[in-house]
Amino acid sequence: MTDAPFDAATAVRPHDDGRTFDVTIDPAWTIGPDKPNGGYLLALLGRAAVAAVRAAGGEQPFVVAANVQYVRSPSVGDAVIEVDVARIGRTASQATVQLRQDGAVCVQALCTLGRLEGGADPWWGSSAPPDVAPEDACARPFAMAPATVPTIRQRVSVLFDPSVGFTTGEPSGTGELKGWLRFADGRDPDPLSLLLFCDAFPPATFDVVRTGWVPTLNLTVYVRAVPAPGPLRMRFRAGIIAGGFADEVCEIWDSADRLVAQSTQLTALRIPPPS
Amino acid sequence: MTDAPFDAATAVRPHDDGRTFDVTIDPAWTIGPDKPNGGYLLALLGRAAVAAVRAAGGEQPFVVAANVQYVRSPSVGDAVIEVDVARIGRTASQATVQLRQDGAVCVQALCTLGRLEGGADPWWGSSAPPDVAPEDACARPFAMAPATVPTIRQRVSVLFDPSVGFTTGEPSGTGELKGWLRFADGRDPDPLSLLLFCDAFPPATFDVVRTGWVPTLNLTVYVRAVPAPGPLRMRFRAGIIAGGFADEVCEIWDSADRLVAQSTQLTALRIPPPS
Repeated sequence: MTDAPFDAATAVRPHDDGRTFDVTIDPAWTIGPDKPNGGYLLALLGRAAVAAVRAAGGEQPFVVAANVQYVRSPSVGDAVIEVDVARIGRTASQATVQLRQDGAVCVQALCTLGRLEGGADPWWGSSAPPDVAPEDACARPFAMAPATVPTIRQRVSVLFDPSVGFTTGEPSGTGELKGWLRFADGRDPDPLSLLLFCDAFPPATFDVVRTGWVPTLNLTVYVRAVPAPGPLRMRFRAGIIAGGFADEVCEIWDSADRLVAQSTQLTALRIPPPS
Repeated sequence: MTDAPFDAATAVRPHDDGRTFDVTIDPAWTIGPDKPNGGYLLALLGRAAVAAVRAAGGEQPFVVAANVQYVRSPSVGDAVIEVDVARIGRTASQATVQLRQDGAVCVQALCTLGRLEGGADPWWGSSAPPDVAPEDACARPFAMAPATVPTIRQRVSVLFDPSVGFTTGEPSGTGELKGWLRFADGRDPDPLSLLLFCDAFPPATFDVVRTGWVPTLNLTVYVRAVPAPGPLRMRFRAGIIAGGFADEVCEIWDSADRLVAQSTQLTALRIPPPS
């Protein structure tokens, strides 16, 4: 761990039982007043899962698969994370994780831990990164009034390719965002931070239709490799919008062009009536 | 519910608390001696989640998103399912579900419940079904000795397009399976059964490399629409095989060409050394 803000904001303080952790939800990682970013919360849960599996004798240092349900938004400040280790295995270990505040479950996750061989190319299969313009030719997600810029934007730099229509505020209709992302302080990405980065953008459906807040009902992240140092590229695509729900798929590549994370999420999407 | 074998095999018998259920894992839905199929187990958990959410006052009748961890394979016979309803919402309700046998957690899931508007086309986005030869021109997954055919094959009919190489036992290297599936007894599909169907095939990686058993570490299913009566078509693709893990994506369409289910899974894949 470094002393970068991400590491301080995801610190977990274990109780003697090795499975309960005190945490402090940091106001610098929010997407609205007192509304913590979902990826940041997942990274908090993931770090607790890693600590609890290690305490239980597991030898897998990384969350390789995480499923998360956002039940109610916690406030910034103190919270408690409890981890139930279901199985310590040779290849993988498995745990359930809950973050509670004032006794109420706010976020819950299933975490699978594994090893990740750094540097190896895939044995089979590939996913090439998208073409993205150089960072200095890219744009911030929105032309937003400074007062409404989420605080997480001070921590995670997201830059969109000029082809992404809604950087100007107008949906292009393609439902695809692509661009660069990195920690604003220059901290290099690691497997834990990919849990954050997979949920660090505006909804891809914003490029299809202007709506209010789009709550993530269910998010799944797979971490596939230890990322090389340097900036990440991402592509985030809306799938099908039907019956009040939308699915969105995110892929992240490292500076060595390797796919390092994949995610899929189901969101609740209230379509505004035609104007 | 009908009186078809699937409905009998997924029956859940509630305790007075409305959240604990006795179940009997049916030997007719196994993929090996005493090894229940993962999709069948997920359908059992999903049915318990629906019953518990209804008992808690929730008005959403369908599991629309499910994440599942297979911790240890239960035996056929008696088991207990416990559901913790985390939130009853207007759009969605959320619950965790665990299946235990002899006190040990065997399968655990996060379930999100919602409504599904039947018959509506997507508001945005589409996914066209693959071309699949007529059922009578398709083949069973393997040329298997009758004694090794999983019992679930008596219940779920899976037929692969002739283009799928490994119907003859040899991987084609494309990592893609496509074909038809339906209940063998003619029962029509419903949203619950899509939880079963998403995990009712041999691993897509069998079309890349011959390996032993490929355990699913983490499975996510989204149910997107109420399926029309008639046979389903599916496409099941391997993604990237790296570092001992492989991801696989499944899509299922109904007889009206509508995408009704999506799934992604992360599996542990032990690659045999070159011979």
